[in-house]
Amino acid sequence: MLRESDRAPGLLLGDGVELLVDAEIGGNVVIHDGTVLGPGVAIQDCAVLGKPVALGPRSTASREAPPPLEIGEGATICAGAVVVAGARIRAGAVIGDQAHVRERAEIGEHTVVGRGSQIDNDVRVGSRVRIQTGCYITAYSQVEDDVFIAPGVTTTNDDTMSRHGKDEPLRGPTLRRACRVGGGAVLTPGVEVGEEAFVAAGAVVTRDVPPRAVVMGVPAREVREVEDVDLLERWS
Amino acid sequence: MLRESDRAPGLLLGDGVELLVDAEIGGNVVIHDGTVLGPGVAIQDCAVLGKPVALGPRSTASREAPPPLEIGEGATICAGAVVVAGARIRAGAVIGDQAHVRERAEIGEHTVVGRGSQIDNDVRVGSRVRIQTGCYITAYSQVEDDVFIAPGVTTTNDDTMSRHGKDEPLRGPTLRRACRVGGGAVLTPGVEVGEEAFVAAGAVVTRDVPPRAVVMGVPAREVREVEDVDLLERWS
Amino acid sequence: MLRESDRAPGLLLGDGVELLVDAEIGGNVVIHDGTVLGPGVAIQDCAVLGKPVALGPRSTASREAPPPLEIGEGATICAGAVVVAGARIRAGAVIGDQAHVRERAEIGEHTVVGRGSQIDNDVRVGSRVRIQTGCYITAYSQVEDDVFIAPGVTTTNDDTMSRHGKDEPLRGPTLRRACRVGGGAVLTPGVEVGEEAFVAAGAVVTRDVPPRAVVMGVPAREVREVEDVDLLERWS
Repeated sequence: MLRESDRAPGLLLGDGVELLVDAEIGGNVVIHDGTVLGPGVAIQDCAVLGKPVALGPRSTASREAPPPLEIGEGATICAGAVVVAGARIRAGAVIGDQAHVRERAEIGEHTVVGRGSQIDNDVRVGSRVRIQTGCYITAYSQVEDDVFIAPGVTTTNDDTMSRHGKDEPLRGPTLRRACRVGGGAVLTPGVEVGEEAFVAAGAVVTRDVPPRAVVMGVPAREVREVEDVDLLERWS
Repeated sequence: MLRESDRAPGLLLGDGVELLVDAEIGGNVVIHDGTVLGPGVAIQDCAVLGKPVALGPRSTASREAPPPLEIGEGATICAGAVVVAGARIRAGAVIGDQAHVRERAEIGEHTVVGRGSQIDNDVRVGSRVRIQTGCYITAYSQVEDDVFIAPGVTTTNDDTMSRHGKDEPLRGPTLRRACRVGGGAVLTPGVEVGEEAFVAAGAVVTRDVPPRAVVMGVPAREVREVEDVDLLERWS
Repeated sequence: MLRESDRAPGLLLGDGVELLVDAEIGGNVVIHDGTVLGPGVAIQDCAVLGKPVALGPRSTASREAPPPLEIGEGATICAGAVVVAGARIRAGAVIGDQAHVRERAEIGEHTVVGRGSQIDNDVRVGSRVRIQTGCYITAYSQVEDDVFIAPGVTTTNDDTMSRHGKDEPLRGPTLRRACRVGGGAVLTPGVEVGEEAFVAAGAVVTRDVPPRAVVMGVPAREVREVEDVDLLERWS
C-alpha cells in the first residue's frame, strides 16, 4: 500500500520500506512494499521500484509471489526505470534511464544496464557486464562476467513462437565470459556465444559461436579469431 | 484540466473522468479529460492516459480532435505506459510497462502489447495478439487475430521516407491471422504476411509472404511450409 | 534541489528555474536546477528535464559539470521523456514521448526526435531532421540538416566494443544533409552516409555511402543512384 512520504518530493512508499539516511531519492519516485535498499543507493526521478508482478493470461513466467526487490549497496536506479519485485540488483550496479528489470532477474556487481534496455524474468547477469542502450535480454538468458552487449541487441528464447507445450522450457542464449555482441545483432533461442568471442554488428546468430571466434553476417559465419591483443586481460 | 485526486496517491484526473469503485490505480498516475474506463481496469504507476494528441509540424497523422480514450473491462495499463487520446483498448488487453499506444489505434480483446513497444496511430490489432518487447507497429498496419510478434520487430510504411505527395497514403504491413514474425525482423512498407506464415528471426521482409510459408534471410526467401503440427489450432 | 510548485499539478522545480507565463506544463513534471526554458515551450506529463549527469564508473563520456539544459522557443518535450543537463533543444524542436537526450547533445530547430529514441551525449543534430521511433544515435554522431532516420535504426561508435585505450576517440557515424536511413538499419562506427543517399530498410552499413547512392543488404552494397525526382528540393 503506497503512501506519500516527506523524505523526498512526490515520493510514494509502500509498507515496510526503510530508507537509510544516505539514500539519494529523486522526484516522484514510487517504491513498493517490502523493497530492500542497501546503503548508498541512488533512486532517480520517476523510477518505480518493486512493482508487483503482473502477468498476461498466457505468459509462461512463474506465478509464485516473488521475494522482495533488493537493491545492493551503492547501486543506482535511473530516471523512469521500472524494476519489478523479486529482482536483485547487486552492489554498484546501474540500471539506466527508462530501463526495465523483471522478477527473479539478477544484475551483478558493477554491471550497467543501458538506457531503455530490458532484462527479462529469470535472467542471470554477471559482474562488470555492460549492456548498452535499447537491448532486450530474454527470459532465462545467462550473461557471464565482463560481457559487452552493444546497442539494440535482440535475444529470443522460443523457436516455435508460442506453439509448444507448457512444460517445454524456453531457452535463452548463454553469453560466456568476456564475449562481445555487436550493435543490432539478433540471437536465436539457446545459442551459446563462447568466451571472448566477437559477434559483429548486424549479425544474426543461429548457431553456437566458438570461444574467441569472430562471426558476422546473416546467418553469422566465423571469419577469424580474436587476436591476443584484443583479449580482455589487456584492457581491464 | 488536471486536478489532484484523493482516490490514489499522486493521482491527477482530468475533467469528466469517472473512476469506478473497482478500478486499481497505482501511484503518480495521470488520466486526462474524458478518458472512459471500464469496470475492473488496472492502471499502474506513472501511466499517462488520454494524452492529448500533439503532432510535429510535418506529421501526416490526422489533426482532427480524436474521440476520448476508451479502456475496456479488465484491461491493464502498466507502469510508465503512455496511451494517447482516441485509442481504444478492448476488454482484457494488457499494455505493458513503458509501452505506447497512439490515437485511433485499436487493441483487441486479450491482446498483450509488450514492454516498451509502440502501436502507432490508426493501427488495428485484433484479439489474442501477442506483441513482445520493443516492437514498433507503424501507422496504418493491420494485425489480425492470434498473431505473434517477437521482440524487436520493426515495421515501416513509407518507401520514399517522406518524399511523396501529401495525398499519397502510407502503407503499413498487413499481418494475417495466426502468423508469426521473429525477433528483430524488419518489414518493408505494405507487405502482407499470410495466415499461419512464419518469418524467421532477423529476416528483412521485402515481398508478400504466402500463407503458411516459412521465410528467412535478407531479403527474406521462402524455405518451406509450416507443418500441420505447428498450426495454431493444435496449440490454442 | 527540487521543490513542489503550484504552477502545475505534481510539478517539482529545481533552483533557479523560471517558468514563463506561456509555458504549458503537464502533470508530475520534474525540472532540475538551472534549466532554461524559452517562450512558448510545452512540457508534457512525467517529463524529466535537466537531470544531473550520472555516469557509470567506466563510461567514457566527459565528467565535467555540463552547462544547464536549454529548451528553445516553442519546443515541446513530450510525456515521459528524459532530457539530461547540458543538452540544447533548439526552437520548435519536439522530443517525443519516452525519448531521451543526453548531455551536450544539440537538437536543431524544428527537428523531431521520435518516441522512445535516444540521442546520446555529444551528438549534433541539425535542423528539420526527422528521427522516428526507437532509434539510437550514438555518442559523437553528426546528423546534418533534413536527414530522415526511419524507425529502429541503430548506430555504433566503437569497433573494439570497449577494448581500446582511454585516449582513443569513439567514432559515431556522420549523416550528411538530406540523406535517408531505412527502418532497422545498423550503422557501424565512423561510417559516413553521403548527401541525399538512401540506405534501405534492414541494411548493415559497414563502409561509407557515396552521395546519392542507394545501398541495401548485409553488408550494404550500392545498387543505383537516387533519381532526380526524389531529391529533397522537390519535396520540401
